[in-house]
Amino acid sequence: MAVAQLSPSYTETRFLSSQLSSASTRLYSRRRQALRPSSKARNAKIVCSVAPNEVQAPITPQTKGTRNKPDCFGVFCVTYDLKAEEETKSWKKLINIAVSGAAGMISNHLLFKLASGEVFGPDQPIALKLLGSERSFQALEGVAMELEDSLYPLLREVSIGISPYEVFQDVEWALLIGAKPRGPGMERADLLDINGQIFAEQGKALNAVASRNVKVIVVGNPCNTNALICLKNAPDIPAKNFHALTRLDENRAKCQLALKAGVFYDKVSNVTIWGNHSTTQVPDFLNARINGLPVTEVIKDTAWLEKEFTEKVQKRGGVLIQKWGRSSAASTSVSIVDAIKSLITPTPKGDWFSSGVYTNGNPYGIAEDIVFSMPCRSDGNGDYELVKDVIIDDFLRERLKKTEAELLAEKRCVAHLTGEGNAYCDLPEDTMLPGEM
Amino acid sequence: MAVAQLSPSYTETRFLSSQLSSASTRLYSRRRQALRPSSKARNAKIVCSVAPNEVQAPITPQTKGTRNKPDCFGVFCVTYDLKAEEETKSWKKLINIAVSGAAGMISNHLLFKLASGEVFGPDQPIALKLLGSERSFQALEGVAMELEDSLYPLLREVSIGISPYEVFQDVEWALLIGAKPRGPGMERADLLDINGQIFAEQGKALNAVASRNVKVIVVGNPCNTNALICLKNAPDIPAKNFHALTRLDENRAKCQLALKAGVFYDKVSNVTIWGNHSTTQVPDFLNARINGLPVTEVIKDTAWLEKEFTEKVQKRGGVLIQKWGRSSAASTSVSIVDAIKSLITPTPKGDWFSSGVYTNGNPYGIAEDIVFSMPCRSDGNGDYELVKDVIIDDFLRERLKKTEAELLAEKRCVAHLTGEGNAYCDLPEDTMLPGEM
Repeated sequence: MAVAQLSPSYTETRFLSSQLSSASTRLYSRRRQALRPSSKARNAKIVCSVAPNEVQAPITPQTKGTRNKPDCFGVFCVTYDLKAEEETKSWKKLINIAVSGAAGMISNHLLFKLASGEVFGPDQPIALKLLGSERSFQALEGVAMELEDSLYPLLREVSIGISPYEVFQDVEWALLIGAKPRGPGMERADLLDINGQIFAEQGKALNAVASRNVKVIVVGNPCNTNALICLKNAPDIPAKNFHALTRLDENRAKCQLALKAGVFYDKVSNVTIWGNHSTTQVPDFLNARINGLPVTEVIKDTAWLEKEFTEKVQKRGGVLIQKWGRSSAASTSVSIVDAIKSLITPTPKGDWFSSGVYTNGNPYGIAEDIVFSMPCRSDGNGDYELVKDVIIDDFLRERLKKTEAELLAEKRCVAHLTGEGNAYCDLPEDTMLPGEM
Repeated sequence: MAVAQLSPSYTETRFLSSQLSSASTRLYSRRRQALRPSSKARNAKIVCSVAPNEVQAPITPQTKGTRNKPDCFGVFCVTYDLKAEEETKSWKKLINIAVSGAAGMISNHLLFKLASGEVFGPDQPIALKLLGSERSFQALEGVAMELEDSLYPLLREVSIGISPYEVFQDVEWALLIGAKPRGPGMERADLLDINGQIFAEQGKALNAVASRNVKVIVVGNPCNTNALICLKNAPDIPAKNFHALTRLDENRAKCQLALKAGVFYDKVSNVTIWGNHSTTQVPDFLNARINGLPVTEVIKDTAWLEKEFTEKVQKRGGVLIQKWGRSSAASTSVSIVDAIKSLITPTPKGDWFSSGVYTNGNPYGIAEDIVFSMPCRSDGNGDYELVKDVIIDDFLRERLKKTEAELLAEKRCVAHLTGEGNAYCDLPEDTMLPGEM
């Protein structure tokens, strides 16, 4: 990955943090905190719904070596020792998961799924680190209170904050959902700039304080280019650790193929969403399968496949807003869970999943140095590899070129945020998917 | 259980359906449909997001004996045969779960939990039957679309409708969440009447068409008296199958005791919520335990236990609304899941859970023929028994009397809905919990 040219004020931080990478983790972590750019380092508020003098009888003994949890919330401020008890001593080591936009509706579904054990399994204790904004801070407290009241045994720590430099400390997963919605009259270029700035800062924060192998899933739109900005601002984290969420599109595409073929959706496999999470995205029917057969052998209506299928996938969010009056928070959070599970469980033999990933070294001839949704497989260790044996015919190639061109244009539009000089914005049209914020 | 006196228009239906109870299930089911009171029997709309002529290649063979699914939704209209495939042939028999208020926020969390397998386990396929109102019908379609897009393998059928006589057909679980919110200037008596009518009709519908052993959890407020009305209108279903949800109160009480004691919430057990789901409810600290010790031995601050503890539990919902701007849909749905799981998994040795249940035969001296939250244990077969070895001291007894008096007053207030003559409403004060609709 090319190291991005970052703005001068962050140069020292990045230089020193890379020099420190062989130091002990604890020291490194402390130094990194000290080196954090001060203008951005507003401390996370410290919130505890029980005052220290109200705690009358700490039953669990204070365990030596328990790390500080300065921004913990309520009952999640108590110390605990998982190794001390029969039910928990076989559990895995706690993992830290950051969620941005934590007071929003997608997170309101996702956080409870993470806490329940549905995502990482029944022996994986988790710490949730909730990132919100100054404006949403009270709502963050409300979310943390509901997490308290849910009594999830696996949820051991919850902390809330508004500085990514605090919240991303040591996180192994960063689920970046928060983004500014598009206001009236706002162009896609404006949105790219406003949200790009958020993701540039979050990239810097991840680079400074997150686990060196943090996996990042960008949901906030425009997610492909936000993910690109984020990874460019995090040069010490492997670029392949960054994902833009196209899994909801994949899930919707599978459902539409199932409906058309008159089969249950579990019969549909090998569906790729190619390219940008926008109206130029390409739901791929050429490589998709139904009951193991190519979709084109099962659905003979080529006109439907070439036109209506893509429209149905893309218009789904808009139809949902019309019917339900809200955007699709529940199914989006399900697709985030699917995206995580696809990285931590081995992909079924012969199948794959879609994710927006960094294009360097891709075997499809797609331009390098962008984030493009492609077919991926994982052996379940958190990483993925690109699938090689896919067919690309002229019809598919032509559509890939269009979505690639859009992503290259978006990249030029945010050059000031990726350290590649002055931005030049020539986005031809509005390609926001209907029903998305 | 005393058989309720119902309004004349339903007499024939009830009489005949009880005569038919020894006939074959299929015949019984058909006859019951035919006997449905016509004024209420507006057919559920038939909705399918794929038109029949769009289904081109049904891959799954039509299985003989597959029952009709007239009001199915979208991809859930396809036929399937779980016994035909390796991955699904060891699964349990499909269960039918009805959810009312299915377009609301609590359901929006709950339905996805049910569909994911988190509640009934990874080998329990489910059918979701969503009950909404004429007004919310489009939103119901939106919810069903999001369920489609979530591709949950265990979710085999989804149907939507606005008639409980259609939606409750053969259901084994009825999760009754929908209720009218209190409008401006509306008294609790008005609310009891308006919502009581809904639950009277739903009780009749359950009696007419649901599984004879359906388990019913009433969430819509005022939930205790709604549950009483519901069970009185369903004389053919055992009264002990009806529950009023007080589990969120129990969960909140556990969290507050944990906070006060400075322990993690998994150390708190044996917490009972007694009585009404209202401000007269009694969170019981006398019998509660922390790390196996009586709470009164761990928390010495008796003033806090006797006063602030209860206030903290009861004010939680109001604080949440202030902070988060919405009512606590997520944690309410978690507590519904907890309530279901408590009935289908054996209660841990020595512990219990709270549920608002029918008081006939209770060992605590509480008035018969009301729905009162009490400590329950289950062997995991869907039923429960009341816990006998609880201590009731004068302080607790006095508070039980107060919440019992309120429930008796609410019962007099809805006498016209339980078949017990003319209503007489003398509710002394507003006891709605803050933050509840």
